Amino acid sequence: MTRPITTIGLDADDTLWHNENIFEDHHKAYCELLSEYHDADTVEKRLFETEMKNLDIYGYGIKSFTLSSIETAISLTEGKIDVEEIHRLIQRCKDMLNHPVELLDGVNEVVQELSRTHHLILITKGDLRDQERKIARSGLAHCFDHIEVVSDKKVEDYARVLQRNNISPEEFLMVGNSIKSDCLPILDLGGHAVHIPYRLTWQHERVDSPPTDNDRFHELGSITQFPSLIKRLCPERS
Amino acid sequence: MTRPITTIGLDADDTLWHNENIFEDHHKAYCELLSEYHDADTVEKRLFETEMKNLDIYGYGIKSFTLSSIETAISLTEGKIDVEEIHRLIQRCKDMLNHPVELLDGVNEVVQELSRTHHLILITKGDLRDQERKIARSGLAHCFDHIEVVSDKKVEDYARVLQRNNISPEEFLMVGNSIKSDCLPILDLGGHAVHIPYRLTWQHERVDSPPTDNDRFHELGSITQFPSLIKRLCPERS
Repeated sequence: MTRPITTIGLDADDTLWHNENIFEDHHKAYCELLSEYHDADTVEKRLFETEMKNLDIYGYGIKSFTLSSIETAISLTEGKIDVEEIHRLIQRCKDMLNHPVELLDGVNEVVQELSRTHHLILITKGDLRDQERKIARSGLAHCFDHIEVVSDKKVEDYARVLQRNNISPEEFLMVGNSIKSDCLPILDLGGHAVHIPYRLTWQHERVDSPPTDNDRFHELGSITQFPSLIKRLCPERS
Repeated sequence: MTRPITTIGLDADDTLWHNENIFEDHHKAYCELLSEYHDADTVEKRLFETEMKNLDIYGYGIKSFTLSSIETAISLTEGKIDVEEIHRLIQRCKDMLNHPVELLDGVNEVVQELSRTHHLILITKGDLRDQERKIARSGLAHCFDHIEVVSDKKVEDYARVLQRNNISPEEFLMVGNSIKSDCLPILDLGGHAVHIPYRLTWQHERVDSPPTDNDRFHELGSITQFPSLIKRLCPERS
């Protein structure tokens, strides 16, 4: 007999609130800034390369992204970029950090509803201060039993979170927009995972194909479909 | 009757390993870089002002410090700073993040010894990825029951950590180099605190005077004196 799902983990960026669209706007402005030196494809490619090279040392988040943007701009222009433009990149970093938190459609109702039948844990990776600010601004903090800001979302990171909160993987279901970060590690551990894609996926989070042959994996078009899935998976709790 | 101390919280930067000396070196080089524009006092003052202005949005850590350094350099030179110098500030950011972890004298032995008689929690504020890397490199991670990287060390931050780990403040003792961040909030909560000053204290962490009239507060010259203090405070555990 399978064990009932007692705890639901929710990703935050692009699962509960819009995030990648903020980066999308920044990317556009960034390519424009460097357009007299290189075409947009080259700029994007080099920026992504710099981000990946710096990921281990910087970690995720807007400050890391900004430092990599400045480094790439200096390198792509061979030092000819105007200092004033670098100043504008720093200003845009602050604008991104101050960006209002915009919940995805239906999130407020769904999270409130889930919190009445399950333990909820918010599991998000990135910059500690920035994630905490967004959680506070979301108005959803009180729905969660625990909030975990992690520096990465690999198998060992989830194992640590589950152990720390005394949750066995079979009783745990993770929901998020990234198959790579929100689904595959949890399926590896023996837990359940639900993928709800966002309109945009950061190149670093893309995977070739979803694990469709695993009956602990589910794919939904919107978080508004999640309550009926969870009722089907946990009939004893509805 | 007072309750016995069961759990010891240890700060990390400048309590377990050297940190402020890395910033000291950077400050010297930074003042030199801007010396043709302003004297060192002006540079330090403006850099600190920028850091404080950005603290709420950036949080603590080396990436935040670097972004504030770049912003200050552009502003203090009215945009005349060479782009190559900005590139060097980013390179120095990476050097700081990659700096080897150098334990303070006696830390290894003391932490090993304490872990045999008490639950130990590492409580450190700053950048998540950077703090995790330093903990991993310190070789001390296995001595701690829990590791908490927090975005700030105010009363409410400690209250959250204690609650999450089911520790009552009277059973808890915090050790650190900052009276402001490691001692006062814990004393406020009703816990015990030990101040062990480091050779340098960042301006933001300075307080006028230590709370010498509180018998739950202790001051030591070195962490090597800590085991005998804890034996005196917890005779039943030694």
